[in-house]
Amino acid sequence: VQSRLPDIGTSIFAVMSKMALEHGAINLSQGFPDFALDDTIIHLVHRYMMEGNNQYAPMPGVPALRHIIAEVIMHTYGHKADPETGITVTAGATEGIFSCISAFINPGDEVILFDPAYDSYDPAIRLNGGIPVQINLRFPGFSIDWDEVKKKITPRTRMIMVNTPHNPSGAVLQEEDLQELERLALKHNLIVLSDEVYDRLIYDGIPHRSVLTRPGLAAQSVAIFSFGKTFHATGWKTGYVVAPENLTREIRKTHQFIVFAVNTPVQMALAEYMKNPDHYRNLGNFYQRKRDFFLEQIRGSSFEPLPCHGSYFQVVSYRNIASTGDVGMAETLTKKFKVAAIPVSVFYQDKTDNRLLRFCFAKKEETLAKAGEILKKI
Amino acid sequence: VQSRLPDIGTSIFAVMSKMALEHGAINLSQGFPDFALDDTIIHLVHRYMMEGNNQYAPMPGVPALRHIIAEVIMHTYGHKADPETGITVTAGATEGIFSCISAFINPGDEVILFDPAYDSYDPAIRLNGGIPVQINLRFPGFSIDWDEVKKKITPRTRMIMVNTPHNPSGAVLQEEDLQELERLALKHNLIVLSDEVYDRLIYDGIPHRSVLTRPGLAAQSVAIFSFGKTFHATGWKTGYVVAPENLTREIRKTHQFIVFAVNTPVQMALAEYMKNPDHYRNLGNFYQRKRDFFLEQIRGSSFEPLPCHGSYFQVVSYRNIASTGDVGMAETLTKKFKVAAIPVSVFYQDKTDNRLLRFCFAKKEETLAKAGEILKKI
Ligand SMILES: CSCCC(=O)C(=O)O
Ligand SMILES: CSCCC(=O)C(=O)O
Repeated sequence: VQSRLPDIGTSIFAVMSKMALEHGAINLSQGFPDFALDDTIIHLVHRYMMEGNNQYAPMPGVPALRHIIAEVIMHTYGHKADPETGITVTAGATEGIFSCISAFINPGDEVILFDPAYDSYDPAIRLNGGIPVQINLRFPGFSIDWDEVKKKITPRTRMIMVNTPHNPSGAVLQEEDLQELERLALKHNLIVLSDEVYDRLIYDGIPHRSVLTRPGLAAQSVAIFSFGKTFHATGWKTGYVVAPENLTREIRKTHQFIVFAVNTPVQMALAEYMKNPDHYRNLGNFYQRKRDFFLEQIRGSSFEPLPCHGSYFQVVSYRNIASTGDVGMAETLTKKFKVAAIPVSVFYQDKTDNRLLRFCFAKKEETLAKAGEILKKI
Repeated sequence: VQSRLPDIGTSIFAVMSKMALEHGAINLSQGFPDFALDDTIIHLVHRYMMEGNNQYAPMPGVPALRHIIAEVIMHTYGHKADPETGITVTAGATEGIFSCISAFINPGDEVILFDPAYDSYDPAIRLNGGIPVQINLRFPGFSIDWDEVKKKITPRTRMIMVNTPHNPSGAVLQEEDLQELERLALKHNLIVLSDEVYDRLIYDGIPHRSVLTRPGLAAQSVAIFSFGKTFHATGWKTGYVVAPENLTREIRKTHQFIVFAVNTPVQMALAEYMKNPDHYRNLGNFYQRKRDFFLEQIRGSSFEPLPCHGSYFQVVSYRNIASTGDVGMAETLTKKFKVAAIPVSVFYQDKTDNRLLRFCFAKKEETLAKAGEILKKI
């Protein structure tokens, strides 16, 4: 068989989680919580199933869910998203991203994205015939070099993808970044795809700079969010896309032929659960404490933390440890020392190797403490 | 915005279900049951959620589920599917179909499909740069004209899509069809995509002719199945793909970037539930009774049933009723008479209008009786 993605193997998240399992390693690789979610939402799913809500949801999402999303978006970002024409519930953020790229990228279109980048972006662009144009974020700091972006824009550029808080680095966009983004998007008529799945996991009092906070920018943007991250249930595979009407119309065309709709009782439970703002309001503090706890555990170790302002992830430098680089280091750490992490180099198209590993701190303190004990000995 | 699917509006299923709701019509349009599913499986989902299985499933599916699928496939079709390398759990059959087309169709590749066809096939091919080559099934009878197929095969033909039991017609492939399919697939090195979501909904003692029953054919085929149809839970959005190792490898590459994985507690519940064959064994009889009950209700009406051997659907001719054609008839029926059906012409690329409507009989007898009463008066 001729492969459409000849250079692609299994996703690094599947590889590392499998390796962790096989070697009995503490799994700080793939990003997911290891603690329980609130029973309340579980019972809600059960109730909606028992009440007979087990058939196809409407293609764009359950109306009650789209309505509460609109309220929360208005309250949080001051952006008016119309539930009828501006919000689409997706089978996780991954499907949201894929459906948006499918909707807008024609063969030959160029898409600017920033490395290190989440591993689905590049193949999603290529499967749709697009041309990924990678720009490396500055190192260290992981900020965008806008002069570099301007140089890379051509008449065939159709989209810029951003991600804030950023996976894997935990860097966040500043207001000046949004200004630059808006200027370029308007000037060159680009669509902005903004992956904001960690929008509520942002620390140190920094506000989340959503593309939705600037009307000019929002008018050309699709913003992608994740229920899995907000409600500690990555395995429920639900997210949503906020976009203006003219973009939403196209996103729904591809979404309907890619998955059609999303699990009905889960959508209904999320709608009910979100009515209480206590269910998501303090998420930043909750995860900031986890980040800080993890940092304490590795203090004095050979792993030096880089700044982390958001997301599930702490990136560390291991430059003082002899190694063959990120991939080898992650493998040794998993197999020999029994702590699994993600090698950051795999997030770069050009495999830039800055001697960095990514640890997920969305874990119980007990888990983080055990991992810290091991890491301190290396 | 430049549309990638300029000629595509909202899926007919979303359109008709919405129209049914707005006009208070009995909804026999979109294919889904209106009766309760077994509480047992609902409680299993609840139990697995409570036991903390709410994070990402493995990308190809929960191992226990892939193993029981392999057993059932062996028992039902005598085909050995390897859970590790031959079975992939998908976010419904729609995602399975899309991921397979994404995996195999390169720009310029031709795909032969048969009209009337499920509405996602054609756009899924086009979004991947492929060229859909539609061949109309014979009318009436909806069988494949293999001479016509031979004429349409070119050096660029890469895939043939079949669907048995067939949506919308309820026609089923015969052993001779599989023989022809196998001969052509081997001769021209084609991949066969076989949509078998109604594999257990087949009537009158006819055996289901899965592509998996013929080893030569299975070696070049991907077969798509649906848990939603088998367990009366279309809203849970779960299905699976069975394919040989070399094809599965490519399917998983696209699947992992399209949705990554599928709802974890639902997968675990399905795995447990499927251990008891009573939970799916008599599905054919169950739905055959519904088909027969519906036929009884419309006997003597102006709607003439065509033969139906499988699926959720009964196609009827309304040629004795004055009308502007299928779309107008479906609209009148929904808005004026309050019974919603699907116009069959929309399943044809060339909008062939044979004066046919498709009714879904996956409903309570009460629902079918009420609809019958109305239909008899027209
Ligand atoms: C879809 S699995 C990847 C989870 C994740 O977002 C990450 O670990 O970066
Ligand atoms: C995915 S909605 C369509 C349901 C269905 O298979 C049908 O009605 O034909």
